Formats: sequence, C-alpha cells, structure tokens
Amino acid sequence: MNHLIQKLIEFRDQRNWKQFHNPKDLAISLVLEASELLENFQWKSSEQAVREKSKSIEEEMADVFTYLLLLSNEMGIDLEKAVIDKIAKNATKYPESKSFGSNKKYTDL
Amino acid sequence: MNHLIQKLIEFRDQRNWKQFHNPKDLAISLVLEASELLENFQWKSSEQAVREKSKSIEEEMADVFTYLLLLSNEMGIDLEKAVIDKIAKNATKYPESKSFGSNKKYTDL
Amino acid sequence: MNHLIQKLIEFRDQRNWKQFHNPKDLAISLVLEASELLENFQWKSSEQAVREKSKSIEEEMADVFTYLLLLSNEMGIDLEKAVIDKIAKNATKYPESKSFGSNKKYTDL
Amino acid sequence: MNHLIQKLIEFRDQRNWKQFHNPKDLAISLVLEASELLENFQWKSSEQAVREKSKSIEEEMADVFTYLLLLSNEMGIDLEKAVIDKIAKNATKYPESKSFGSNKKYTDL
Repeated sequence: MNHLIQKLIEFRDQRNWKQFHNPKDLAISLVLEASELLENFQWKSSEQAVREKSKSIEEEMADVFTYLLLLSNEMGIDLEKAVIDKIAKNATKYPESKSFGSNKKYTDL
Repeated sequence: MNHLIQKLIEFRDQRNWKQFHNPKDLAISLVLEASELLENFQWKSSEQAVREKSKSIEEEMADVFTYLLLLSNEMGIDLEKAVIDKIAKNATKYPESKSFGSNKKYTDL
Repeated sequence: MNHLIQKLIEFRDQRNWKQFHNPKDLAISLVLEASELLENFQWKSSEQAVREKSKSIEEEMADVFTYLLLLSNEMGIDLEKAVIDKIAKNATKYPESKSFGSNKKYTDL
Repeated sequence: MNHLIQKLIEFRDQRNWKQFHNPKDLAISLVLEASELLENFQWKSSEQAVREKSKSIEEEMADVFTYLLLLSNEMGIDLEKAVIDKIAKNATKYPESKSFGSNKKYTDL
C-alpha cells in the first residue's frame, strides 16, 4: 500500500492540492465517494446492480480507497494494523455465541 | 491485503454472517462507517478533531477498510489495480495545467 | 414550518450553539443523520426494518428534518418553493415517455 | 407539506415509480442527496461554498426534502410531530447546564 500512497501523493503534489487535503475535508470526501459507490445500487436489487454496474462500482471503490489511503497518510495511521486491532475489539462486542446468524447491532444483542 | 481479507472472512464465517453480506448491504455499510468517521469532525475544526479524536478516527477508518475489503472480495475486484487505473483516468479529467492549485470539480474547470 | 424553525432556534440559542452552526457543519450533520436513518435498514429487507425499527426511523427522520430546517434558515432558502422548482426541473430531466417504469438515472436514459 | 407530498406522488405515479419507492431505497436516496448537498462544501470553507454554490445547495436541499417527504408518506409518519417529540427528548440528552457552549456529543458530556 505504501507504493500506492506514493503514487497518490505524487498526483496530488503535481496539482498543488495538499493545501485542500486537511483530514476534515478528506473525511468528507470519503463519505462522498462512498455515496457515489452506493448510488450504483439505488432502486435496484444487489444482483441487478452487480450485473449492470460493476465497472462503475470498481471505479468508486478506487475513489474510496484513494481517500482512505490519503487520510491514513495524513494521520500517520497504519491501516492494516488498525483492522487487526478492530477485529480483536469486535470479537468482544460480537461474541460468536450471541451473534451467530444474527443481523442485530451489538447494542441490541 | 489478502491476509487481511482472510482474517475478515474467518471472523464473518465464525458468526454465519455471509448470508447478510450481499454487495448492496456492504455498500450501505461502507457509507455508514464513513459517516461515523466523519462524525469525529462534526462541529470542530480539522485540527481540534485530530487532536481530540485520533483513536476514534483510527477505529472508524478500520471499519471503512473492512467493508471495502469485504466488498472487493465479494465482487472479485483488485483494489490496488483499481486505484492505479483510476489515477490514469483522473490524470485526463484533471490535467495539471487546468487543475493546478484549484479546488474545482472537473466539470467546473 | 416557520413555527418549527422558531422552536429549533430557541433550543439552539438556549445552549449557545449558533457558533457551531455554520452551513458546512450543518450539511455534514444532515449527512450523519441521514446515515443513522439508513442504519435502521442495514442487513435487513425493507419490510423487516419497517416492522422492527419504525420508532428509530421516525426519530432519525426528525433529526434529518431538524438540520434541513436549520440549514434552510441559515441560507435564507424557502424549502417548499425549492421543491416546487425542482419538480419542474426534474420533469425536463425525466420526461414521462422515457422514464416510465424505469429505474435508470437521467444520464443513462 | 401535504400539498407538496401530493405533488411528489403525482410526479412519481406519472412515471410508474412507486414500484421502486420502498422505504429502504428511499432511505438510501436520502443519504445520496444529502451527500450531493455536502459536495458543494468539499475542499471549501463554509463561506466560499455559500458564496459560490448557493443555487446548487438549494437544489440539493430540495432533493433531500423530497425523499424525506416521500419516506414520511410511505411510513405514515407526521414529520412536524416527530420534530416536536425529538426536541423534547433532546432537551433531556442535552441539559442546558451541561451543554451550554459545548460542541460535545451527549455521550461525552
């Protein structure tokens, strides 16, 4: 992923965009791209969207990943370690015995 | 990242959650987590949020990354390749000459 | 709706919150509440969500409406007129002949 | 607002779109429009966005209100009453003594 981050920073710096890339606006951008990803599924079953919109879905996922990487770089966060840590935390919030086959949030378990 | 995906799938399957993880609901979940990330910046300057909420920001970024990885796995998408391809596409939408130092969307350039 | 706006402003001013209520943070808040509304539908069919989460759905819709009203007040926008105007514009984007029974976006019609 | 809802239903029914307007997809649509509203503020100060994007902000607020009204109609929810009820509930979550001049969430007060 570091190789990707370097490419994204190069693209950003060639356009002199670092001035706009504060963490708050990067977090806003992440939400906007996640919504554009979701737009591919609007008014459709999951299957229809996957069948008709897979290229657009891929491109919006790339945009989400882009802002996630740029924000992690700006914040000095190791994304892979963050996921490992969160899995451990979620294992406590969602014990297998209570959450098996359930679509409930941990606050409702 | 494949190692991470394997860990996330293991967590999911221990809870029998694959039945809920269709691409549409994964895309919804990605938006929800991106919003929870953004909530850390609500009513605050970027600096205040970074100063006071960095642990929570890290955890929400982990959740965003989790759903991005699970969706990429479900769709058979190579996230790193998708970003490389999107950088090339964006280089055309945002030529350096027009976009240098500008915060405008390509449709307004 | 003016009566509602007055009540919301009174609530805000009793807490000295006007200092935080700039349009950008109000727009962020509107997204956050819309996502909390959507969370009620996560991993569920529409029918299951309506059956099990109607009270929470109502409360989140109230939060969305709250920020919409506060933002309209801050921006001096007449929401009812804005909807009437947008219906006229959408009638051009989505002519009945092309959009009848279709779930496509106008750019794909 | 009932008059507005009637106009929106007429527009929907002329296009035979009721088949797509289940509460889950309406809630998704509300999030998408709220994000399009927020996009007007991306990479900008609140002031710059208000100065340059007020027409687009108004149109996106109209879209948000449209889906809020359609969802309230679909769910049989009285939006004005919902806001009044929520103000009362929030008065308990955010007592003036604790929340005066504070940008903290009630869980952090």
